[in-house]
Amino acid sequence: MELGKLRVNGKRLRDSLERMAEIGATPGGGVQRLTLTDEDHRARDLFASWLREIDCAVTVDRMGNMFGRRAGRNEGLPPVMSGSHIDSQPKGGRFDGILGVMGALEVLRTLHESSVVTARPVVAVNWTNEEGSRFSPAMVGSGVWAGALELDWAYARTDAAGKRLGDELARIGYVGEAPCRAFPVHSYHEYHIEQGPVLEREGKTVGVPKGIVSLLWGDVHLTGEGNHAGTTPMNARHDALVAAAEMILALNGLAGRAGGDMVATVGEIRNRPNSRNIIPDGVDFTVDLRAWEGERLQAAWDRFCAEAGEIARRQGCAARLEKTWFVDRTPFDEVLVRRVLAAAVDLGYSHMPWVSGAGHDAAYVSRLCPTAMIFVPSIGGRSHVEVESTCWEDCEAGCNVLLRCMLQSAMEPAQG
Amino acid sequence: MELGKLRVNGKRLRDSLERMAEIGATPGGGVQRLTLTDEDHRARDLFASWLREIDCAVTVDRMGNMFGRRAGRNEGLPPVMSGSHIDSQPKGGRFDGILGVMGALEVLRTLHESSVVTARPVVAVNWTNEEGSRFSPAMVGSGVWAGALELDWAYARTDAAGKRLGDELARIGYVGEAPCRAFPVHSYHEYHIEQGPVLEREGKTVGVPKGIVSLLWGDVHLTGEGNHAGTTPMNARHDALVAAAEMILALNGLAGRAGGDMVATVGEIRNRPNSRNIIPDGVDFTVDLRAWEGERLQAAWDRFCAEAGEIARRQGCAARLEKTWFVDRTPFDEVLVRRVLAAAVDLGYSHMPWVSGAGHDAAYVSRLCPTAMIFVPSIGGRSHVEVESTCWEDCEAGCNVLLRCMLQSAMEPAQG
Repeated sequence: MELGKLRVNGKRLRDSLERMAEIGATPGGGVQRLTLTDEDHRARDLFASWLREIDCAVTVDRMGNMFGRRAGRNEGLPPVMSGSHIDSQPKGGRFDGILGVMGALEVLRTLHESSVVTARPVVAVNWTNEEGSRFSPAMVGSGVWAGALELDWAYARTDAAGKRLGDELARIGYVGEAPCRAFPVHSYHEYHIEQGPVLEREGKTVGVPKGIVSLLWGDVHLTGEGNHAGTTPMNARHDALVAAAEMILALNGLAGRAGGDMVATVGEIRNRPNSRNIIPDGVDFTVDLRAWEGERLQAAWDRFCAEAGEIARRQGCAARLEKTWFVDRTPFDEVLVRRVLAAAVDLGYSHMPWVSGAGHDAAYVSRLCPTAMIFVPSIGGRSHVEVESTCWEDCEAGCNVLLRCMLQSAMEPAQG
Repeated sequence: MELGKLRVNGKRLRDSLERMAEIGATPGGGVQRLTLTDEDHRARDLFASWLREIDCAVTVDRMGNMFGRRAGRNEGLPPVMSGSHIDSQPKGGRFDGILGVMGALEVLRTLHESSVVTARPVVAVNWTNEEGSRFSPAMVGSGVWAGALELDWAYARTDAAGKRLGDELARIGYVGEAPCRAFPVHSYHEYHIEQGPVLEREGKTVGVPKGIVSLLWGDVHLTGEGNHAGTTPMNARHDALVAAAEMILALNGLAGRAGGDMVATVGEIRNRPNSRNIIPDGVDFTVDLRAWEGERLQAAWDRFCAEAGEIARRQGCAARLEKTWFVDRTPFDEVLVRRVLAAAVDLGYSHMPWVSGAGHDAAYVSRLCPTAMIFVPSIGGRSHVEVESTCWEDCEAGCNVLLRCMLQSAMEPAQG
């Protein structure tokens, strides 16, 4: 058959996603499949069984990363790889991560069904603990694989109950035989929901990120003066929560004025003593700043620090601001990114270039091989929530783009 | 001796306060003597023993309120009463409440020492659970005594560990024989620290409140939309915490502009899901508004509701505002208030008329008999914190005012 006419089976992809959504289903229509829980275990076993049904070799490495390999004509060539993660957020959705794993599986199934013989092997991967919501940090499986994190360090991560990641991995039987280290890979595509509202708002089916934005995390610690709420006149107060409120608005305004892809979020706040009739004497809050250009982020943080200092002085509070994390942007491979765009054009799907505001396993993998991502719209832009959704037509469209890109890569002979 | 020349013993008052401060002493120099704990028990026993040393009859009522009665010439006349509370806030100070109990004791000791025979009996009282920080609400002992609260309802209050107030009262052996109900009282004076910065700022020794301000409590519930912090552009957000920050500043500005005795506080805030990289989808916060005139409070709350509604609309959040409690001001007895002012003048202490921004047992007692309060300065205006302090000279001065007022009342014959 003509490979250019090959299409995935949208019905089969949907069935697989719906089967997976039963594992850890929440009453609110979402999924709770935290990494290395019994739910993760069952979903992994199901994924492996589906791979074996289509004669793929399943390998598990020491980090529990799972690789389903479909043989190519030349087994000596580095494989073409795609995947994402099976684990979910607590009360997460039915598409985040799992779409990329089921998408890669669907590509393998389509090749299998049509008995396509590719030049290179094709691999579907499930990375362990992408979410980081049970064991911090996120993207640990791909991080160890890429050599950015140490295996023993990853094993020693603990959850809220004090359980070690390594012990939980062993408990579910997913400490594999293979070493967890990067092997040569021809190219890596990660298929994922956008997790934002932009594609839907712009009426586009396929998003083609040029990379992952830069990220800066900061912590703000404010000290005011706790006093009786009834007896302290307004002009004698040093209210840490009032100072924090001013800073939250300053940060919000700063990102709003910056425009473009810059976003700023205060997601976490703690107020002390948090008592109805005591003026707050201490507030801690977090800052999450993102933009494509790392230099703009740094400048925005500096600007915020100056504004926050001014606010603290005016409110008579002490402020300590600390930058706790910075990662520069991850540009994807230009050739692969163009290929994703071209595939969308060829297939007649509307599309747009974009950036990824979220981190993905693709960030670590891109350190070792050419990498690109494919986004499809999130309904209402919602993600990390139970109502997260993507329509089935879009799931199928993105998967067809993935198939086309992987096929092109898998047919490429050895270079040079 | 000439009664006008009678003075309290400042050294003895200080010793008593220091003895009491040992019970539940905190490393930070404060006191943790929560109501009906072992610390409260020990402090009550000590107070009772001191009363008995000066031949006072100690009565405990069903609520654990303690009355130390010094006989008068005419035992049939309603007594003159003064007191406050032995219980403290968690990590509270060494003066809040206990100064008023030790102050009343010091008056009794002074009368005893000089063998003064008063026309009326004189009573020192310790009210159970004024603070309300272990068992909500506050001022329960005086509330039941005044008939404003039911005894069985008070018994059924539970602490954070689920223990019942009635059971804890029995555990420390302070369910007394006397019924908890108001008996005829000629006049009630409560001696207390200001718990605010005004006396210190104005350089005055004695504050004479005309009453207790009006109080309005409200709750604000905000619902935004939880989304990924990295993938949601600034203009597609419905950030509940940003809306809350705007409302906190609106409330603060409103009270600031109102000036005078109006104060507004957001003391408690809860943010959901309170995760660093998720846009907050829900925030609840409390509002505490106080001013002398209840009508001004109501107007300020209405104004705040309008501003908050506008902010919520602009931020695309849903807001529910609920007024949960309103108590109108408690004016004290004009004759007694003038008497306190006159006593300060006679004794040569600087003084100023003021209001009480905090609630006190005096509020309930004033429903049944003429009532007034005497304030002395809080250093730095600090209260409900371990560093709460009042200089010994001021403690003695306020106690001399109390002695003078109580003596005048205690010498008054039956009226009419």
